[in-house]
Amino acid sequence: MNHTVTYYECDPQGEVTVGMLINLAILVSEEQSQAIGVGPDVVAQFGGGWVITSYNIEISKLPKVDETIVLSTRATSYNRYFAFREFWIRDQNGEEYAHISSMFVYMDLTTRKIVQIPDEIIKPFHSEEVKRIPRVGKLEGITEDDSILQQDYHVRYFDIDSNQHVNNAHYFDWMLDVLGEDFLKSHQLKKMLIKYDLEVRYGKDVVSSEVSIDDQALLTKHKIGTKGELNAEANCWWEKRA
Amino acid sequence: MNHTVTYYECDPQGEVTVGMLINLAILVSEEQSQAIGVGPDVVAQFGGGWVITSYNIEISKLPKVDETIVLSTRATSYNRYFAFREFWIRDQNGEEYAHISSMFVYMDLTTRKIVQIPDEIIKPFHSEEVKRIPRVGKLEGITEDDSILQQDYHVRYFDIDSNQHVNNAHYFDWMLDVLGEDFLKSHQLKKMLIKYDLEVRYGKDVVSSEVSIDDQALLTKHKIGTKGELNAEANCWWEKRA
Repeated sequence: MNHTVTYYECDPQGEVTVGMLINLAILVSEEQSQAIGVGPDVVAQFGGGWVITSYNIEISKLPKVDETIVLSTRATSYNRYFAFREFWIRDQNGEEYAHISSMFVYMDLTTRKIVQIPDEIIKPFHSEEVKRIPRVGKLEGITEDDSILQQDYHVRYFDIDSNQHVNNAHYFDWMLDVLGEDFLKSHQLKKMLIKYDLEVRYGKDVVSSEVSIDDQALLTKHKIGTKGELNAEANCWWEKRA
Repeated sequence: MNHTVTYYECDPQGEVTVGMLINLAILVSEEQSQAIGVGPDVVAQFGGGWVITSYNIEISKLPKVDETIVLSTRATSYNRYFAFREFWIRDQNGEEYAHISSMFVYMDLTTRKIVQIPDEIIKPFHSEEVKRIPRVGKLEGITEDDSILQQDYHVRYFDIDSNQHVNNAHYFDWMLDVLGEDFLKSHQLKKMLIKYDLEVRYGKDVVSSEVSIDDQALLTKHKIGTKGELNAEANCWWEKRA
């Protein structure tokens, strides 16, 4: 799938935001699912839906405004409970911008519990059935000794997209905004590992976003929570900009 | 210009947000300017840039997720200080979704003052030179007698796009979010008139968004300000959803 990067998908540096990369990744996977006959309506017939549990985003360089990028995806492997999916973002010559690995589970929409993935919605992808699913990556949590920056964010009505959930891009926005302009302008994101624990919901939730910065290791550890509950955690690895 | 509406450009009802409509409008006008050789880099050579002063957005119905819409624009007319531009959003059969009129001025980037539009950047559009520029619409401000709802919004780093300004869509987000879920789910936006007075800037500004609701007239009056200064005002006309 081709996509031309617009000015409103970019940050002040003219580079696609990482939240938008994930929006585009989901877009191409929805297109693929639809094409092989297991779109959201078919998936819903089995009483559940796909839920993302983690992304590992490796960035060679970020696409810039006006560039036409090529998005591709593969449902790589799965077992009874987990489905592993990969995404590639490349330029027109096949040069890689970013590679994303992700893990999905299937949730029963009535009980809100994770259940076995129905054969009917996974077989059409012809991905490999495996015993051991690859790990998306190991995450280092914020510890009590870490000094943190914290900021509150309100969930807004327009944060919910047509999939009826708070759009994924906002999690990245809340996590990274805390770092502030000076940090974000002088550092380039190279890798981000994010794990989702609990969905953020509109209406009642104020999101508390915390970050601990290890300036030596160029590692930032992130956590977002609502009412004392953990919603998502992430690690980001950075490079200093020249 | 064709555009296929994605899930992340839509609200929970599956309809394109009005902020995204404006993003798409600007996209098509940038494409046109570039095509006739007066893109942003050329415009900047004259020491200034185009600044939007108002939009009048008339909505027949909002495009939905997955629909491929057709965006078009015309630089209709201008005089020494003002340029009047129109946009049409239509479906593949030419049926109109929305019509947008807008007024632009040219601002000297050093003095931040509005100056005469240089001939070199307006002539290539072959629009009509007029004495009297059409009015975009008359706006009814919030009065002291109106009861208002108010909410604060922080300007976030990723609110700035690659044009180096707070992206226009966020003004709509701040203005409409105050209305809340119940109102937004039960009402359909039919017309919105917005006037910009002062740019909202990242870093120091907390945006105060106020709205007064006239439920009889199905009219809402909006105002956003920072530190007591007025940034933008709007009127919205609504229809009750069935």
